[in-house]
Amino acid sequence: MTVSFIGIGLIGGSAAIALRKRGFATRLIGVDSNPKHAEQALALGLVDEILPPDEAVKAADLVLLAVPVNVARELLPRILNLLKEDATVVDMGSTKNGICTVARSHSKRVQYVASHPMAGTEYSGPSAAIDGLFDGKKAIVCEHSLSADFALNRALSMYRSLNMDVLFYTDSEAHDRHVAYVSHISHVSSFMLGLTVLEVEKSEKHIFDLAGTGFESTVRLAKSSPVTWTPIFIQNAESVSHALEKYIENLQRFKACVDARSSDGIAALIAEANKIEKIIK
Amino acid sequence: MTVSFIGIGLIGGSAAIALRKRGFATRLIGVDSNPKHAEQALALGLVDEILPPDEAVKAADLVLLAVPVNVARELLPRILNLLKEDATVVDMGSTKNGICTVARSHSKRVQYVASHPMAGTEYSGPSAAIDGLFDGKKAIVCEHSLSADFALNRALSMYRSLNMDVLFYTDSEAHDRHVAYVSHISHVSSFMLGLTVLEVEKSEKHIFDLAGTGFESTVRLAKSSPVTWTPIFIQNAESVSHALEKYIENLQRFKACVDARSSDGIAALIAEANKIEKIIK
Repeated sequence: MTVSFIGIGLIGGSAAIALRKRGFATRLIGVDSNPKHAEQALALGLVDEILPPDEAVKAADLVLLAVPVNVARELLPRILNLLKEDATVVDMGSTKNGICTVARSHSKRVQYVASHPMAGTEYSGPSAAIDGLFDGKKAIVCEHSLSADFALNRALSMYRSLNMDVLFYTDSEAHDRHVAYVSHISHVSSFMLGLTVLEVEKSEKHIFDLAGTGFESTVRLAKSSPVTWTPIFIQNAESVSHALEKYIENLQRFKACVDARSSDGIAALIAEANKIEKIIK
Repeated sequence: MTVSFIGIGLIGGSAAIALRKRGFATRLIGVDSNPKHAEQALALGLVDEILPPDEAVKAADLVLLAVPVNVARELLPRILNLLKEDATVVDMGSTKNGICTVARSHSKRVQYVASHPMAGTEYSGPSAAIDGLFDGKKAIVCEHSLSADFALNRALSMYRSLNMDVLFYTDSEAHDRHVAYVSHISHVSSFMLGLTVLEVEKSEKHIFDLAGTGFESTVRLAKSSPVTWTPIFIQNAESVSHALEKYIENLQRFKACVDARSSDGIAALIAEANKIEKIIK
C-alpha cells in the first residue's frame, strides 16, 4: 500500500518506521514543509521519496496527517479534494473538535478518519522518530459514524499495525475536554515548572546540582516543542483554561495548608491525590 | 561493620540491599515503629535482625536514620545520647535545616552527618526497597564542618558503597530553599494534578481511557506517601510556599495567554521553558 506521510516528525516518522516494518506500507512518500526535515527523513530511511504535497496525496492509498493541529485543519479540505476516491486520510492530531468541524461540511467527509494516537515523547522532528513509539498505547477515533466503512477499516488496520488499541469517542468536543485534563494541563504544569525553576536559577547558581529523579520526571515534558503545542492550546483554549483554573485552585488550597502549617490539611490533600493509584498503576 | 537502620522502608531498605551487596555492612539491624514493616523487612532479608531502638543504636558502628523528617528530628538527640563514642549517625531526610538546628546544640554533634540522598520512587515501605535505587545519583551533605573527620569519612565511604556522588552544601537553609524548587514543588504539582483530574473524573466517567504517557510521567509522584511528604512540606513550609507562589503566578500568566488566545504569548512561554533542556538532558 502507498502511504503518504504529511509531516515526518516524531509522530509521522515513528508511524513510518512501524508501518514499513510490519509490511503495512510498501511505498512510503514523505511531505514536509521544512526542506531540512524532508532531507533528514530521506537520509534516515523513514520514507522512500519526497514529493510535493499535491502529488503525494494523489499517489496515496492512505494519507497520514501528522502536522501541528492548526496546519492539519488548514490542509484537510485540500487533501480531501485531491484524494483518490478509494483512498483514506487519517489525521493524528491531539485536538479533534476544530478539524472535525471543518471536515463535516466537506463532500468527501467519508474518506476522512479523525483520530488521536495517545503517544509521544518530548522530542520532535524526523530525528525524534523511534521504533515502538505507539506499542500498546491507545488511539482515539472521533465521529466514526461520519467515516465510510472502507476508510474506518483502513484506519483500524493501520492502528493494528502500529500495535495500538483503538477506542471510539464519538463526541469530538468531549474528547478535547478530556485530553485538556489528562494531557494538556500535564504539559502546562511541566512547562511552568521548568520556567519557575529557571527563573530562580538566575539568582541561585547551584540549584541544578540538586536535580533529582522526581524533578526530572515532572519536568520532562517541558522540553516539548512550541510549534506542536501552541496550536493545541489555542484550539483547545476553553477546556485548557477551565482545567487550569481548577488546577490553580487546588494548588492554592495546598498552599493555604502549607501557610497555615496544617499537617492534617496537607495529609488529607495528599491522601486524596493518592487515589490516582487506582488509575495509573 | 554493624549498621542499624532506623526505618527500613524505601530509603532504609534500599540502602540495606546495596550496603550488604557491596560488603559495607556485615551485620544489619533493623528498627521500625510499624511491627508489620519490621516483620516484612526480616522476611525480605533486608536486615538480619530486629531490635528495639535503644539496643540497635548501642550495637551500631553506623546508624542510618531513614524515617519521616519530623520523626528523625525527634529521634536524633536520643540516638546521639546512646551512640558508641566511635560510632556515627547519618540522617537521610529531604529537609536539613530543622534537624541541623536541633543537632547543633548537642554535645555529641560531631558524630552526626546531615545528609540528603537525592533518590527515591513514589512507593514506600520495605516492599518498595530496590537494588540500585541510589546508583549514580547525588547525595548532599550539609554543615560538614560540624562533623568529626571519622564521622564524615564513614558517611562518605557509605555513600560510595551506595554508588552516589557526594556534594557538600554547608548551608542547610539554602539546601532546603533549593529542594523546595527542584523536588518539593514537583511533588505538589503532581499531587494537585492527580487531585484535579480525580475531581473531574467524578462527572466524566470515561476520562481515564485517555490517560497517555505525558500524564503518567507528570502524575507519577502523586502516588507518594503522605507520611513521608507531609512533614517535609511542614518543615520546609516557608520555601515551599514561596516556590508555590511563583509557580502559581506562572500558571496564571500561561492561562492569561490561553484566555487571550495569544499564540505568541504561549509560544514565548514554552520557548522560555524549553531552556530546561540545558539542565535536564
